Amino acid sequence: MLSLIFGAAVAALLVALFLGSRVLAGSTGTDAMRRISDAIKQGAEAYLSRQNRTIGMLAVFVAIGIYLVYHGQAGANPSRTAMWTTISFVLGAGCSVIAGYSGMWISIRANIRTAAAAEKGLNAGLQMAVRAGAVSGFIVMAMNLLGIGGLYAFLTGVVHILPQEVPLQIVGYGFGASFVALFAQLGGGIYTKAADVGADLVGKVEAGIPEDDPRNPAVIADLVGDNVGDCAGRGADIFESTAAETIGVMILAGGSALFPVFGIQGILFPLVVIALGLLCSVVGVFTVSVKEGGDPMSGLNRGFYVTGVLAMIAFWFATQKLLTPLASSGIVAPHASTYYFYCGLLGLGTSLAFVYITQYYTESKYRPVKAIADASKTGPATTIIEGLAVGLECTAVPVIVMVCAIVGSYFLGKASGIEPGHVGMLGPAGYIMAMDVFGPIADNAGGIVEMGECGEDIRKSTDVLDAVGNTTKALTKGYAIGTAALAAFLLFSAFMDAVREHTHTAFDTVNLAKPTVFAGALLGAMLVFLFSSFAIRAVGRAAFDVIEAVRKQFREKPGIMAGTELPDYAACVDIVTRGALRQMIAPGLLAVGAPIAVGLAFRAFITAADPTAAAEGVAAFLMVATIAGILMALLLNNAGGAWDNAKKYIETGVNGGKGSEAHKAAVVGDTVGDPFKDTAGPSLHVLIKLLATVTLVMAPLFL
Amino acid sequence: MLSLIFGAAVAALLVALFLGSRVLAGSTGTDAMRRISDAIKQGAEAYLSRQNRTIGMLAVFVAIGIYLVYHGQAGANPSRTAMWTTISFVLGAGCSVIAGYSGMWISIRANIRTAAAAEKGLNAGLQMAVRAGAVSGFIVMAMNLLGIGGLYAFLTGVVHILPQEVPLQIVGYGFGASFVALFAQLGGGIYTKAADVGADLVGKVEAGIPEDDPRNPAVIADLVGDNVGDCAGRGADIFESTAAETIGVMILAGGSALFPVFGIQGILFPLVVIALGLLCSVVGVFTVSVKEGGDPMSGLNRGFYVTGVLAMIAFWFATQKLLTPLASSGIVAPHASTYYFYCGLLGLGTSLAFVYITQYYTESKYRPVKAIADASKTGPATTIIEGLAVGLECTAVPVIVMVCAIVGSYFLGKASGIEPGHVGMLGPAGYIMAMDVFGPIADNAGGIVEMGECGEDIRKSTDVLDAVGNTTKALTKGYAIGTAALAAFLLFSAFMDAVREHTHTAFDTVNLAKPTVFAGALLGAMLVFLFSSFAIRAVGRAAFDVIEAVRKQFREKPGIMAGTELPDYAACVDIVTRGALRQMIAPGLLAVGAPIAVGLAFRAFITAADPTAAAEGVAAFLMVATIAGILMALLLNNAGGAWDNAKKYIETGVNGGKGSEAHKAAVVGDTVGDPFKDTAGPSLHVLIKLLATVTLVMAPLFL
Repeated sequence: MLSLIFGAAVAALLVALFLGSRVLAGSTGTDAMRRISDAIKQGAEAYLSRQNRTIGMLAVFVAIGIYLVYHGQAGANPSRTAMWTTISFVLGAGCSVIAGYSGMWISIRANIRTAAAAEKGLNAGLQMAVRAGAVSGFIVMAMNLLGIGGLYAFLTGVVHILPQEVPLQIVGYGFGASFVALFAQLGGGIYTKAADVGADLVGKVEAGIPEDDPRNPAVIADLVGDNVGDCAGRGADIFESTAAETIGVMILAGGSALFPVFGIQGILFPLVVIALGLLCSVVGVFTVSVKEGGDPMSGLNRGFYVTGVLAMIAFWFATQKLLTPLASSGIVAPHASTYYFYCGLLGLGTSLAFVYITQYYTESKYRPVKAIADASKTGPATTIIEGLAVGLECTAVPVIVMVCAIVGSYFLGKASGIEPGHVGMLGPAGYIMAMDVFGPIADNAGGIVEMGECGEDIRKSTDVLDAVGNTTKALTKGYAIGTAALAAFLLFSAFMDAVREHTHTAFDTVNLAKPTVFAGALLGAMLVFLFSSFAIRAVGRAAFDVIEAVRKQFREKPGIMAGTELPDYAACVDIVTRGALRQMIAPGLLAVGAPIAVGLAFRAFITAADPTAAAEGVAAFLMVATIAGILMALLLNNAGGAWDNAKKYIETGVNGGKGSEAHKAAVVGDTVGDPFKDTAGPSLHVLIKLLATVTLVMAPLFL
Repeated sequence: MLSLIFGAAVAALLVALFLGSRVLAGSTGTDAMRRISDAIKQGAEAYLSRQNRTIGMLAVFVAIGIYLVYHGQAGANPSRTAMWTTISFVLGAGCSVIAGYSGMWISIRANIRTAAAAEKGLNAGLQMAVRAGAVSGFIVMAMNLLGIGGLYAFLTGVVHILPQEVPLQIVGYGFGASFVALFAQLGGGIYTKAADVGADLVGKVEAGIPEDDPRNPAVIADLVGDNVGDCAGRGADIFESTAAETIGVMILAGGSALFPVFGIQGILFPLVVIALGLLCSVVGVFTVSVKEGGDPMSGLNRGFYVTGVLAMIAFWFATQKLLTPLASSGIVAPHASTYYFYCGLLGLGTSLAFVYITQYYTESKYRPVKAIADASKTGPATTIIEGLAVGLECTAVPVIVMVCAIVGSYFLGKASGIEPGHVGMLGPAGYIMAMDVFGPIADNAGGIVEMGECGEDIRKSTDVLDAVGNTTKALTKGYAIGTAALAAFLLFSAFMDAVREHTHTAFDTVNLAKPTVFAGALLGAMLVFLFSSFAIRAVGRAAFDVIEAVRKQFREKPGIMAGTELPDYAACVDIVTRGALRQMIAPGLLAVGAPIAVGLAFRAFITAADPTAAAEGVAAFLMVATIAGILMALLLNNAGGAWDNAKKYIETGVNGGKGSEAHKAAVVGDTVGDPFKDTAGPSLHVLIKLLATVTLVMAPLFL
């Protein structure tokens, strides 16, 4: 099995290498285009290296903290556990950095080549952007296989730790991945929206120049933002979702209930599923194409369906082969593997349902966006009210879907005769990631074409790709919140399991009727609200710096508006960089610190009769934070997406079209939605999993 | 004890009669003022009678449903239980209607007399408004004592039911009160904000005429709205909070754990506390006064402190006298009553803390409102973003306060040696209610003075009173959410107790780690989001009707704007009435139906080994809905209040003052906040308690 895991990883990396070289071989267009692309590249790399330095420093403190926590524990060989937990944290953090960086690396090179390819036609542009996205997707997934698989192989093969003990030694990997992902998503999200909001407010509103106008000093910062926010941030996010879900499954499979049944096969099962899914994604990417004048979305959908069906078939074989009880267990459950296959299907169905619900709430052909566009006729206030009503409403169906999935998989697992199941679906993540990175590449290509003064033809192609990119970004956000939710459920169970292993008690109750547990739940929900406040306000603060900087340039260089003087793009890039890094610290530390603080405070409730009182409080904190986080993320993502598309819908000529009062109102909605959908919402996806991984790693502290 | 309870109720009613006659004896000003006041009176009475008819019809169905549910139960004497549960539901609903009506009845008569009294001076105006508010507050509280006390006396004395069995027979009373309160708050809240938003959008924004301008056809509807929304709605809300909390305590005191310890004294304890608190409130109201040129707020605060200190002393005596274990119980716990006194103090402290936190987040002298006013400088988008950030942030400290109260009272109760305590504080509700009704009376008085073309002097006085009224409205909202939260905790325990009594099992665990229970929790949080969406959107829809109607009048009667033709005020009143009643149905039915639907669906999870699976799921639904409801209500109330005051702050001349771009942006914030703070937020207070009372009454369905 390890050879399959590593083989798939290497194969995917080779394909990524091949695709990457093809992308890099593409034309880089005109000089004007190259100048802009170089400026973007420079800004993005400067930002990411500074961001990684900041995260690196924070990570060192956390690594030391982890070592000290574990080193002080009783039990067999605490220093070995301390060492491996710390090493796996560092490794997870490192891989997460690489995952984020790889997405951005290819994206800042593919944007200009996509723009140039679009000159040849829509299909050339589409394939360029998708394949560049695939490079990043494959690297992210391969990193997971190599990282977790490598740790497993090393710990069992070289350090001679028992296989079932490995998962709890490497929980640090998941925490490291979440830790970096949170700061990357926060920093990138703040960066991209601060630049966007700042550029829009001062450019469109105050100076009256169009979007992406080269006279706007913040325009390059805005384009840089697409890369560092959407590519780098989402890369780290999806990497971390997969890592957290994998380790969650491994912990459960290594637990005393399941290990005797499935043995090593159960532990390696998630890695095998990812490996197979990755190979399916490779196939899927190569099926994407579009006829001239056709809809690129249907090409992308075809790729997704191919990947999905193949992944499902592969999943079937994996369950049949790996999830049949070992003869040594004495358990006879011939259909167990089939029931677990159904659990996986439920997970896939949930993710798919999330994608379709997202579509309904954010696309202009359905009621919600139309209602917002209509509300724009009576001004910004009604636009905001209707958008928030849509955001609040859109939580209903996803929750019902999730309830069906959770309850369904529980009963399926019970029906298997072995143990209640857990939803989870890791298959097509590689393809999803490719689709996700596609968005900002297309967006950037459009910006380069706009600023590079290219022909009308290219522009039409890049406009089409840009529109599709907006849709894929919204859809993958739906997928991301779906998988975040599913990963979170796995991680609860893993946390309960970890506490059981540490304490050797039958810890299986999180009793909300106990006042202290209820208090934990209350604090969990509150954390989500407070974190969202921090994230939203961070954008406002960083954007304010941008506005001030642009106003200063307009004041000091009157030639800019006349077109006789070049704005100082780098100054704006620098200001956003510093602003985003400063503003990401508070929400990031809140997210990491709050569960630890709650756990430590709740140690006061531990008595001889109730040794797990603190762990129980933390579990309630985690579970209710997850509930609130999912709802809030849905609200923020979908309200933001709906406002965005209501604006675009009006720009097609509805309700007075561009420049009308309705359009002005819709622009207000769009601006309000920016920090919702691109900063706070996606950061909440990461928050949910981070809370689970941090409590998992810090569990010994609460006992 | 019953004589104390009934005596206090009668005394309070006599004082209310006396104050009411004094209010009615006041001058009714000029003819012009009377014309406006009469129009308001007519509109408000027409609305309330139609609203009550609608609610009455819905209540008949619910009453039949309750009867059928209980009649089909096993156990001793099901038809007696069915009859008394149904009768108490009807009685609770009826009393709630009277509570709401009494507030409005006096308010629509006091508004003009306050305006006229303001001519004599600030103190005369203040006392007129406060005493009118007190009439309503005293009636509401007396209604509670007479209703619950009367039911208790009748059931024990005439029907000969054992005292400890009475509380579970009269849970219907609490549900009836919540049921009416929900629809009254929803209908009134939708009415007031639809009229307000509609009048503003079409008057201020489109036609460019000032607020309260008699040329605006919706202006009378707006003034009517203050009465039906703020007076009638809040009257029913506070009535219901008190009823629900009283019955919650009675159920716990009648349970098998506490009844042997405190006996009948424990059951009557909450009624005694309310009776004493009511007498203290009477004293407090008579201490309110203000020197000419002074700040009326300090006069109101004096009254509050007098009431609070007296209520605390009375509470001390009540605990010492009633909460000392009976000799027959064999329990020796000499300090038990003192510990329970501390629990009450914690409750009072929590309510007070909520009031102060509300003040911090919504008054213009503190950071949050100032930050919103500053954000207005960069337009409506940043105004909204900052306001939402404030709303999300403001949940943090109240949650920490609540956690301290819950955990603190739990340990205090444990320390008493008898049973974990429950926070709760019923004392000064009568005074709070008086302060609350004061707001809309002052607001209306201002409107009458504005439209009745009175002198500059009166206007100055009514403006001061109006400003104070806005503050008291915000503060009492803080108090209301605080008591709603505390009542909810009591009611959880009561629900657990009720299930225990029904099933004779040791039902004391709500285990979130069970997938079905977790699903209940997820659905509970979702309900709050969906309900808020319904409530917010209802305002938008009803407001849209108003806008259309006003536009039509402007179009068809061109003389209105010139001042030569009178607008048809009654037509607008009628449209808002119909709109509000139509729009209140969906959110209302959602609130009542969701917990029942969840409970019935979860019956599928009942097994022989787990007979309380459905009840456990409903309990999780209830608890997490309460958590989400408290957070969402805080967010909506405080964001709305902060936007409102940021606008007022700018109107004092800050950031360009009235008419500036910043002011326009702030008006957008204020309009967005309107349905937040006056419809959805206050309705959530009621929702929290309604969920508890409906699950309590319907508990047999889930078993």
